[in-house]
Amino acid sequence: MMTDPNELVRNAIRSVPDWPKEGVTFRDITPVLQDPRSFRALIDIFVYRYMRQRMDLVAGVDARGFIIGSVLAYELNLGFVPVRKSGKLPFNTVAEEYKLEYGNASVEMHTDAVLPGQRVLLVDDLIATGGTMVAASRLLQRLGANVVEAAAIIDLPDLGGSRLIRDSGLPVFTVCQF
Amino acid sequence: MMTDPNELVRNAIRSVPDWPKEGVTFRDITPVLQDPRSFRALIDIFVYRYMRQRMDLVAGVDARGFIIGSVLAYELNLGFVPVRKSGKLPFNTVAEEYKLEYGNASVEMHTDAVLPGQRVLLVDDLIATGGTMVAASRLLQRLGANVVEAAAIIDLPDLGGSRLIRDSGLPVFTVCQF
Repeated sequence: MMTDPNELVRNAIRSVPDWPKEGVTFRDITPVLQDPRSFRALIDIFVYRYMRQRMDLVAGVDARGFIIGSVLAYELNLGFVPVRKSGKLPFNTVAEEYKLEYGNASVEMHTDAVLPGQRVLLVDDLIATGGTMVAASRLLQRLGANVVEAAAIIDLPDLGGSRLIRDSGLPVFTVCQF
Repeated sequence: MMTDPNELVRNAIRSVPDWPKEGVTFRDITPVLQDPRSFRALIDIFVYRYMRQRMDLVAGVDARGFIIGSVLAYELNLGFVPVRKSGKLPFNTVAEEYKLEYGNASVEMHTDAVLPGQRVLLVDDLIATGGTMVAASRLLQRLGANVVEAAAIIDLPDLGGSRLIRDSGLPVFTVCQF
């Protein structure tokens, strides 16, 4: 690769001011995905990191976490399991609540999504307050999984999420920070 | 591959009775994704179909279409663009409505997600009534895209969606039927 892949990814992220509300800058990954070169660089950063680690599953968080998580699972010859928003999964489920700015939300998984002792990589697109990642990790642990790492494209360290996840005992890997 | 990949995929799909409501049987793809062998077989069915076709982008429909679409984009060295539910995209968007059993829903894309003339493969997990696929295809065409084919894992032919999509002029490919 001629360009540093992390820089290629970071430079392709679009900053959208005042979205979803005034004063907030949204980091938009769609331009990274749209260009085959930055998309491949993005995935390969994760592939090189995890290709020598013994793992069983990649768990991707609904919905942008599916985009990275499923490619990683395919490339690493692992299974893929979705961590879904409430009410989307048809079989027996377990749920874990987390706090939003106003009210609560929850993530759900099928009770048979993971076998006890399976090593799982948890993937989302972005770590903000860390609430979703912590809830997803708890859910996986309740199913008996050994959650190996929380991986994301973007860390927003000022919001404290990556620190919160690390404090919960889970290593964190991100491609870039804003 | 020792087993027919289509059979491997079809046999791994779980039928959940009375979900999301009584009398409906939901076809659950999560067991296909969870097993590395059936997941790889699933993706490779699409890869072998499209590897010699000249295309630019894979458009995946929110959210299960992301799981197949993103891997395909990576494997075929194409870009990936999400077709999202309403209100999820931060930049300038265009929307297309479609009918649900009760009321309407809409799909959205960024206005710069496709360049005029780009050849796009449209991917979702399942074709039921075909409403989402037809709306997504219209949206792509409004942006100037040449939509090459609508691809999904499962076709429910009794619901008439694949016929509706074909009647709109778009070829359809699915891995299995129920």
